[in-house]
Amino acid sequence: MLLYSEQPCEAAAMFTKHSYCGACVQVGKKHIADGRLQAIVAVSGIANVATGDTGVTHAMMMCNTAATELGISQQDVLPSATGIIGYQLPIEKIVDGLRDVKSQLDGDPMAAARAIMTTDKFPKVACRQFDGVTMTGIAKGAGMIEPNMATMLVYILTDAKIPSSVLKTCLHNSVHKTFNMLSIDSDTSTSDTAVLMANGCSKAIGESTFQRMLDDICLELTTMMQKSAEGATKLLTVQINGAITDLLAKQVAKSVVNSPLVKTMVYGCDPNVGRLIMAIGKICDPTLRIEDLSICLNGHDVITHGLINEFPDEVLRKEMARESILIEASIGQGIGSARAFGCDLTEGYIEENAAYSSS
Amino acid sequence: MLLYSEQPCEAAAMFTKHSYCGACVQVGKKHIADGRLQAIVAVSGIANVATGDTGVTHAMMMCNTAATELGISQQDVLPSATGIIGYQLPIEKIVDGLRDVKSQLDGDPMAAARAIMTTDKFPKVACRQFDGVTMTGIAKGAGMIEPNMATMLVYILTDAKIPSSVLKTCLHNSVHKTFNMLSIDSDTSTSDTAVLMANGCSKAIGESTFQRMLDDICLELTTMMQKSAEGATKLLTVQINGAITDLLAKQVAKSVVNSPLVKTMVYGCDPNVGRLIMAIGKICDPTLRIEDLSICLNGHDVITHGLINEFPDEVLRKEMARESILIEASIGQGIGSARAFGCDLTEGYIEENAAYSSS
Repeated sequence: MLLYSEQPCEAAAMFTKHSYCGACVQVGKKHIADGRLQAIVAVSGIANVATGDTGVTHAMMMCNTAATELGISQQDVLPSATGIIGYQLPIEKIVDGLRDVKSQLDGDPMAAARAIMTTDKFPKVACRQFDGVTMTGIAKGAGMIEPNMATMLVYILTDAKIPSSVLKTCLHNSVHKTFNMLSIDSDTSTSDTAVLMANGCSKAIGESTFQRMLDDICLELTTMMQKSAEGATKLLTVQINGAITDLLAKQVAKSVVNSPLVKTMVYGCDPNVGRLIMAIGKICDPTLRIEDLSICLNGHDVITHGLINEFPDEVLRKEMARESILIEASIGQGIGSARAFGCDLTEGYIEENAAYSSS
Repeated sequence: MLLYSEQPCEAAAMFTKHSYCGACVQVGKKHIADGRLQAIVAVSGIANVATGDTGVTHAMMMCNTAATELGISQQDVLPSATGIIGYQLPIEKIVDGLRDVKSQLDGDPMAAARAIMTTDKFPKVACRQFDGVTMTGIAKGAGMIEPNMATMLVYILTDAKIPSSVLKTCLHNSVHKTFNMLSIDSDTSTSDTAVLMANGCSKAIGESTFQRMLDDICLELTTMMQKSAEGATKLLTVQINGAITDLLAKQVAKSVVNSPLVKTMVYGCDPNVGRLIMAIGKICDPTLRIEDLSICLNGHDVITHGLINEFPDEVLRKEMARESILIEASIGQGIGSARAFGCDLTEGYIEENAAYSSS
């Protein structure tokens, strides 16, 4: 997959914080350092992780070849790879594939989104236009998703005129509210990357307007990844309010959205809401008190001041049968809040991941 | 389930660190405070968690009734409950069940182990005798297991003569190496408890000998819980060496043993060893370097200095098909080490937990 802007772009990027990040991430960090990019080259199927010096050479060859074909500097190309860990890229095939690529480029983001899929159920594209400025994002991500920074491949392109320093701030703000709050399986990728490029062909835009457009795009792509999650049949969203800090709220929201017993309960449409109490309190924070805990499930007050309210079983079972489950919990400590995005845990996830391999 | 010693016992206990621990844990902490116990009363099916003041009253009634029947102080009875969260105990039924219980007691630990089961596949009992001292442990635990202190119901009884201060130290030492390193699903129970009682009817025993017996019992019970895990078909053991500290080694070992992608790989007998790299590095410690990472899988050097070694696929698939998988990783930083105990993740876990509820 090749993304190319005819004009050089102001750019910002965020990368996985994984200790063993991939060769493309290592090279990408260097190429984004000057806040400028003009192209992104990505491959799917092999992650180019645990590949030693050869892997780094391959990542640089991807950039070099793309740059030569496009007539730009290789420093302005950011490489990505996603897929299985521990194997070398078939670099000749990639170099061959890039030959004469400039003549094959077109303006269809859907083709790019499709090219970077691995186990994704569908290609993910989101677009916004506002006041003459266009912003388009594409994303890939279905499993091994529990971000510590970026967590999947996300590329967002805009014609707005905006400096890379502002892009960086806006990207951080959006990513922390959206992609970084998405967890499919608590596993963290070694490769993943979010890039924002602005070529300035349109016009200047206010930072707050730009931030809103970016937030919108990132949230839409996050929801798409949630729907595309491996084996998932239902969306699970967890809103935590009343924490001492936003950080504590995030920890609690992640704890609930990642709990296998909550995820299987959602899958089974089982209103065993005691598991929500378990999943919140398992962060083992000594300041939490059960008498301050209240929980809503799709708007129904299932737990008030730490006690389960009686509901006709069929009411909650009907609610649990919906495609989208929203858990809202107030932990009664302060004004910190956070929202986390996840999905159910199903036999489909097991089947997909017990079999997904090189062979 | 009632455990009773004719002699008062020196005792020590460890409890869940869950923020919303159950009523029995709250009462148990008070009753163990003086380092003495004479009986344990436990129910399975309902956890007595999120039950407010009524739940605490019920826990005290359990102790009170047992104490009256046994002719001892209620302060010397420790209560436990395990099962679904958010429901009140059927306290009349429990009180009725305790009537004339003293005449029904016998010396069979298997009956006690069976009485505290919930989703356990089999009752768990371990015994040791050494130098005239007997030690017997029983345990319950199959899911919602990711300890932060104790993590399941474990009761260990001995006739050794040994003060409660030594019992406390020994119990901590053993629990941190065994039960606290067992993780079935990363979920933490609100209720669970490990108790060690010594009635002194035999004779004094050296602390190191006692520690070895206790370590043995705890390790055997841990392995039994591993085998009893919900839906599990295989044992997964992860040994981490070469960490800067034992604490870091523990974090890494837990990260691997809890990774859904590693657990499904073990289930699917798939030697996709790149997932091991992912699961180690996802702790995002900046000091880890992939070139220092080497991994053995059941004795085969699958990764050396961060690179995957070539193996005939059938060799590793045959190894992965064994009932017990041992991952040994050296992260090349120091002399810290840790061992974690877990299992695979299967459709069986999903089925069991999508359906397990009050109804």
